[in-house]
Amino acid sequence: MKPYHTVAIVGVGLIGGSIGLALRKRKLARHVVGIGRRASSLMAASRCGAVTRTTRNLSQGVADAQLVVVCTPVDSVASAVLAAANGAPSGALITDAGSTKLSIVEAVDGRLPRGARFVGSHPLAGGEQSGPAAARADLFEGRQVIVTPTAAGKLSDTRAVSAFWKALGARVLTMSPGEHDRVVAVTSHLPHLVAAALAAATPRELLKLTAAGWHDTTRVASGDVRLWVEILRNNRGHVLKALAEFGKLMDSWTAALESGDDQRLEQLLTEGKRNRDAVGN
Amino acid sequence: MKPYHTVAIVGVGLIGGSIGLALRKRKLARHVVGIGRRASSLMAASRCGAVTRTTRNLSQGVADAQLVVVCTPVDSVASAVLAAANGAPSGALITDAGSTKLSIVEAVDGRLPRGARFVGSHPLAGGEQSGPAAARADLFEGRQVIVTPTAAGKLSDTRAVSAFWKALGARVLTMSPGEHDRVVAVTSHLPHLVAAALAAATPRELLKLTAAGWHDTTRVASGDVRLWVEILRNNRGHVLKALAEFGKLMDSWTAALESGDDQRLEQLLTEGKRNRDAVGN
Repeated sequence: MKPYHTVAIVGVGLIGGSIGLALRKRKLARHVVGIGRRASSLMAASRCGAVTRTTRNLSQGVADAQLVVVCTPVDSVASAVLAAANGAPSGALITDAGSTKLSIVEAVDGRLPRGARFVGSHPLAGGEQSGPAAARADLFEGRQVIVTPTAAGKLSDTRAVSAFWKALGARVLTMSPGEHDRVVAVTSHLPHLVAAALAAATPRELLKLTAAGWHDTTRVASGDVRLWVEILRNNRGHVLKALAEFGKLMDSWTAALESGDDQRLEQLLTEGKRNRDAVGN
Repeated sequence: MKPYHTVAIVGVGLIGGSIGLALRKRKLARHVVGIGRRASSLMAASRCGAVTRTTRNLSQGVADAQLVVVCTPVDSVASAVLAAANGAPSGALITDAGSTKLSIVEAVDGRLPRGARFVGSHPLAGGEQSGPAAARADLFEGRQVIVTPTAAGKLSDTRAVSAFWKALGARVLTMSPGEHDRVVAVTSHLPHLVAAALAAATPRELLKLTAAGWHDTTRVASGDVRLWVEILRNNRGHVLKALAEFGKLMDSWTAALESGDDQRLEQLLTEGKRNRDAVGN
């Protein structure tokens, strides 16, 4: 990828801050403009070297950008994309990093100014931490990014967005926004709900009696609550389906335990172990 | 704790091996006898310095021991404790490291030879790894061990077993075997089942699209399947109760998501985050 002169990042939290750090470390942008609402986050992003300039004014921030990456919470992505498309120079490439895709793409679709180039993205990176202080230049190295072109989109734009993520060290996969949402409901949103429910289900007085198993299984429950409410609401249909499937599976495990069917229990645990071992680390 | 002349460890996997390493590193035993069924495990334990002598004959192995620690899978603990009590010198202290307690204590109760001293234990340490190759001298440092005396037991024996675990760096809490089983059903067995079910619920073709959230939440599913079938079966009643409670909670989360009740969803996620943050790491 040819280095950009100016990249604008809207939202300089963990993801936005890490993009800035990676761009600068890899010399992929001369200027990185950090755009945000809170002066404290902008200052933190500036201090850690993730951005070279900051502003709270989106239109001004994107005015010179050839690439804009919107890294706000999902509920604000669509409006930020539209604002960026109206404020950026004609031909600027715009993408985002939201954890859901269909509602964003639908809200943007047909409302972009003529000549605007937007393709959605979702880097499968991050975790329970948040904020620019947690940003890391290597956050995307070896990680999967899902790029979600629409049927109406241009292949060259999809390629340009893919090239951007690859330049940060990520692996890129493309799928439709709807397919993306169906997949992450299973691989990310359901695990989050289950982890949070497990943590919530543990009586306060037993917390000191938890060990590595509980710690790992519930870790993501520490994630930002507001961000997650938005994500789950935006992907409600697929998450409800994943929850229903998971509930059925739990019922069959319960039945095996209840009836003392050790063979069935062993079979179910073996299926879980096989999938987990296949992923590694 | 005064160092022991000879400690016998029955079962030299992750837990037994780690006890041996810790005893030797802290100079708490002159001789550590490793007792096991498989020559390969005994050799591995010997090679890593966890034991000073090995044998596949339990009676011979415990013949000189002042302390015997039974670290076999839970189904074999009671019979190993009884065999150790019959083979060890009179007055030898015996404990175990099984993940369930009531079924073990009940199987041992009233069948011990006169003068035998047994108090059950459960170190909340370990994880998804197993075998002597994963053993570490610091496995118990700062970890919680639950010691489970019976009403009929002697306080001095409970103190001696507690002193042993504290000498390995652990913190010790005592509770009844039944209370222990109720607690770990919630803090350990339920999370294991949920993690394994989540891993099993993920279609094979989506495994490459998992990220840190899925990895953490499902990590324990890699644990030894046979060990876990035994644990779950031995604690069936409490695990079924924990499963039922968890199912109810998941239903209420599902209802909140279904009805678009964001406030309720936020409240539930907040409860999970509060508990998870209270534990740390």
